[in-house]
Amino acid sequence: MKMRELSSTTGVPVGTIKFYLREGLLPSGELSSPNQASYGDEHVRRVRLIRGVVEVGGLSIAAARRVIEAIDSDLPLAETFEVAQHTVSEQIDESSLDIRSLERADAVMAGWRVHPQNPGRLAAARVIQTFEAVGQRDGAPWYASYARAALAAAEADLDEIDARPDRAAKAETVVVGTVLGDALFAALRRAAQEHVTSLRYGG
Amino acid sequence: MKMRELSSTTGVPVGTIKFYLREGLLPSGELSSPNQASYGDEHVRRVRLIRGVVEVGGLSIAAARRVIEAIDSDLPLAETFEVAQHTVSEQIDESSLDIRSLERADAVMAGWRVHPQNPGRLAAARVIQTFEAVGQRDGAPWYASYARAALAAAEADLDEIDARPDRAAKAETVVVGTVLGDALFAALRRAAQEHVTSLRYGG
Repeated sequence: MKMRELSSTTGVPVGTIKFYLREGLLPSGELSSPNQASYGDEHVRRVRLIRGVVEVGGLSIAAARRVIEAIDSDLPLAETFEVAQHTVSEQIDESSLDIRSLERADAVMAGWRVHPQNPGRLAAARVIQTFEAVGQRDGAPWYASYARAALAAAEADLDEIDARPDRAAKAETVVVGTVLGDALFAALRRAAQEHVTSLRYGG
Repeated sequence: MKMRELSSTTGVPVGTIKFYLREGLLPSGELSSPNQASYGDEHVRRVRLIRGVVEVGGLSIAAARRVIEAIDSDLPLAETFEVAQHTVSEQIDESSLDIRSLERADAVMAGWRVHPQNPGRLAAARVIQTFEAVGQRDGAPWYASYARAALAAAEADLDEIDARPDRAAKAETVVVGTVLGDALFAALRRAAQEHVTSLRYGG
């Protein structure tokens, strides 16, 4: 298909597709004449993926490029996960965290096989440090409930990945699930909060 | 205490505290002389709260002001929740969503008492629309797992709120929990993903 059709099929403006091409996010089409390239289904799929991770997932173009390179690489899945996780996670300097909050975070994920530099471990410690600094009561039961919820979500993530047929499809799901999962959970938690509030307080 | 002590107690620079005062996020201290104000424990608490929602929660100053006004108001809790939810959620135009994605989102939260304009409902529909556009397999089992996880987290949120002694403390927990809960879950999901990946694929 021509550029115009790629645009109408995906709903992404021609200018944006050209931007993706220039930024190296989208592979070039096949030249059908010196001035005309032809695009296939894999381009449709890729344009939708880029738009999804950028517009809904909130990734920068540089971050989108990193996760797309990871999909196109032959990295083992665990390392593809690592790239996706580091790309969607804010860099946290461990020295900005107090030891007690790290210990609390480690207690919350007791028994989990997690590398000390997992971005989630540091981010959890930072949330715990903040939660306790603002003078909330002991957050341990709250953290524990969230850890159980996160473990259930991670199992669901891996089920999705296991169900895909090959390495490329699995890697794509790693990225999509990592990027969109935060947004899905945040969205559903808002709805669930309204529901539970309504059950408990009426209204 | 003087400004300098408020700064050293909270670890927030004097310039930042003055900025919070100017922006109306922090109430003025009591004037102990024409040029000197005195600050109390409630200022310590409030400075930590502002820093937490801005630096860890990622709120803008305008958004922080909105949630702090909601804490200081006498809004019923359900409405304080609404303010907090709308403040941390991106505005989504319902007309940008296709009907089918909204129906899918409603199916995921079947039986929940949720207002059609709940920001989570629209955000969930947008994630679902994106997930399906990028050619993932039927996401229903993944959405359902996330809905169960979100409901468990919302129950934990409400348990925290119920445990607080009075309206002001409950309202503060509504805001802190809403703002920090997304970050806590995202962090723990990263760690849980590494754990479950390691269990399933070794490494």
